[in-house]
Amino acid sequence: MGLRPTDLITRKRDGSEHSQAEIEALVLDFMAGRLTDYQMSAWLMAALLNGLSERETVWLTEAMVDSGRRLELRRSVSPCIDKHSTGGVGDKLSIPLAPLVAACGLHVPMIAGRGLGHTGGTLDKLEAIPGYDVRISVPRFRKILANAGASIMGATETIAPADRRMYALRDVTGTVESRSLIVASILSKKLAVGLDGLVLDVKCGRGAFMQNRKDARLLAQNLVRVATALGTRTVALVTNMDEPLGTTIGNALEVRESLAILRGEGPVDSTELTLRLGEEMLLLAQKKAPSERARAQARERLLGALGSGRALEIFARMVRLHGGDPSFIERPEVLPTARHVVAVKAGESGVIQAVDARRLAEVALSLGAGRLRAEDRVDPAVGVELRKKRGDRVVRGEELCLIHAQSKTGLPLTQAREAFHIGARARRAPALVWERIG
Amino acid sequence: MGLRPTDLITRKRDGSEHSQAEIEALVLDFMAGRLTDYQMSAWLMAALLNGLSERETVWLTEAMVDSGRRLELRRSVSPCIDKHSTGGVGDKLSIPLAPLVAACGLHVPMIAGRGLGHTGGTLDKLEAIPGYDVRISVPRFRKILANAGASIMGATETIAPADRRMYALRDVTGTVESRSLIVASILSKKLAVGLDGLVLDVKCGRGAFMQNRKDARLLAQNLVRVATALGTRTVALVTNMDEPLGTTIGNALEVRESLAILRGEGPVDSTELTLRLGEEMLLLAQKKAPSERARAQARERLLGALGSGRALEIFARMVRLHGGDPSFIERPEVLPTARHVVAVKAGESGVIQAVDARRLAEVALSLGAGRLRAEDRVDPAVGVELRKKRGDRVVRGEELCLIHAQSKTGLPLTQAREAFHIGARARRAPALVWERIG
Repeated sequence: MGLRPTDLITRKRDGSEHSQAEIEALVLDFMAGRLTDYQMSAWLMAALLNGLSERETVWLTEAMVDSGRRLELRRSVSPCIDKHSTGGVGDKLSIPLAPLVAACGLHVPMIAGRGLGHTGGTLDKLEAIPGYDVRISVPRFRKILANAGASIMGATETIAPADRRMYALRDVTGTVESRSLIVASILSKKLAVGLDGLVLDVKCGRGAFMQNRKDARLLAQNLVRVATALGTRTVALVTNMDEPLGTTIGNALEVRESLAILRGEGPVDSTELTLRLGEEMLLLAQKKAPSERARAQARERLLGALGSGRALEIFARMVRLHGGDPSFIERPEVLPTARHVVAVKAGESGVIQAVDARRLAEVALSLGAGRLRAEDRVDPAVGVELRKKRGDRVVRGEELCLIHAQSKTGLPLTQAREAFHIGARARRAPALVWERIG
Repeated sequence: MGLRPTDLITRKRDGSEHSQAEIEALVLDFMAGRLTDYQMSAWLMAALLNGLSERETVWLTEAMVDSGRRLELRRSVSPCIDKHSTGGVGDKLSIPLAPLVAACGLHVPMIAGRGLGHTGGTLDKLEAIPGYDVRISVPRFRKILANAGASIMGATETIAPADRRMYALRDVTGTVESRSLIVASILSKKLAVGLDGLVLDVKCGRGAFMQNRKDARLLAQNLVRVATALGTRTVALVTNMDEPLGTTIGNALEVRESLAILRGEGPVDSTELTLRLGEEMLLLAQKKAPSERARAQARERLLGALGSGRALEIFARMVRLHGGDPSFIERPEVLPTARHVVAVKAGESGVIQAVDARRLAEVALSLGAGRLRAEDRVDPAVGVELRKKRGDRVVRGEELCLIHAQSKTGLPLTQAREAFHIGARARRAPALVWERIG
């Protein structure tokens, strides 16, 4: 305490470990304007280069939570279990998953984000639903949660505001890529809500922020340990993000796929990962060890909620309570559609060896499905629909994917075609989940 | 070229060496507002922690020079030789040195700074002279230089403005302590003037920024190599700053000592170092190797300029051309004087083993002679006058130093007394100049 901003910076610059009081002062002084943006960005760079210890990360996360309001939702509705993904291509799983586990008796108070760069954002996807309002108040969030069991909204001004301000700085000062800062940023928003448990989907691969297994594992371990230290039961799955998840990339298209998953008619991979994440959420809610038996029971309940239509019903209720028009559930053609749908065809015959998630994400981005900058607007209708996935046989001239676009000129057809690697024989499919940490 | 600010930051963050074009873009974009303060401070921290190569330092210095006007004084008056000190306690040498070497035919276009922390600043000292104006225009600087051969002024808005803005940021973001940034900062201001040669006095010891010989030597080598690469003949002396230089600390007091040096009546150490630095300046002007003979001839000329009164005459002329009243030269009582002069007496008898420069600097600072913050005002009259120096014998009750203060209450008498270490026998005096690099 009593340290001046410059002293806080020089301590981290010189490789010292901060005390909890110092970390609190850093965040408090920043929020009060006593520590300026340029001082924070110098500290952020020092923290990135010299690292933060796990204790420092715990304290930073806590200080960021305490920069705003703690909702303590678990006190009013329980069990409160949330899921967070570090972001991938075609990763719409939050949308079917929240109503699915709510249909099994859980409460899912999900604060979601927007897309940036090649990864999409849950809020953008939900906004493809006519009327769905992601900018609701905390009292309404509580009401929807009590009523539907699930609500997905954007962060409000009062939820971990220090994270918002620090992230805005990190984004423009080359200080995003710090594991500790990533952990504190993710967890501060999630833990501000007041959860009984949290499941993390740490994506790893060409379509993810983390490109290699080692980095992804370290991030997952760090996330689990810090969240646990802050009193929230937490499990992480490190999952494969070399290929797009499911068969759609683009906001309205991903809502359609979410509907298919909720009907039990979704693609194999996105359905399976939804169920795997759902299992973990149910196990956390029951405070059960992940035995084969407990896991099988959880899966039974999830499949039951899909089969009975109960999950879809909860989804419709959540949409309605958010001001959305649920008629798209019966009539998906109500969702925004693009003017043109252009097929991309295979130039050769063979077996799909790989589908490059990163490349297809860039195709979708160039169509207007995502943002290059935070202030860009997204087009809900455009995107890519996959007709072939890894392992599928394809004959020359067959459709690989469909491009949903607003204009027929300058379409990235070659780039889309080249995302599909075609070879002579099938390769073994890689695992969907690399490992579980918790 | 074409790199965004964030890319420039991440390159240095990741330990890459910048190209010259990148360094130029960094400084240009910063000055144009395309790279913000918080981005520059993130870059500065990355540069401090990952280092800058010598080439990068050369390019940075050049870009900082080019952020403003190059005066190219050597084209109009020659030889143009300047001196710079990294700052010490009682270091008033610029004041006698500039007129002394000007009396030997050199031109000394000196851009000086203000004091901060425990080291004093030449501008503050000159402002103790009634009327002396350090804030003059460049045309007037040129005129004084042509007329008197020496002028000492503060940096204008047009001289290396990038350095001023970057230094202001470094000061509050814990990024002062980077050798490369220090080198670029010092040299950009000096080289903007357009010199034939530069002598650097790199201070080392308890009263200096550099506390150990190794760091001081590295800084001196770096300064010499970078300045030389930029086309300016440069020599550095690493000099002892464990003890105060001369017998005064405080602005008007140091002007008095400067007068004494110019009259050939100054303290042994400050006079000797003035002559040593003067020799180097004369040798640089003559483009002569520092042979014993050339050095002896240079010293002869300097002693001649002191003995003839010519150096004092030049000083009077420089003061007058800066708007100052030179009557203080004959009547030093015209200079500001403090209300009280309090003697600090020895508590024991013996030989002075050491006089702690840092401690006496803090005494002078607490009296109001210096600044804790850039916006503080200095009191020209106050300070410390040494009556004993290292090696002197002292009898209990004898005066160690005089405190010149505006108030008699709360005087740091104990601190002043404790700065004098008294022992049984004389120790060998350390060298004044540790080494010469050039």
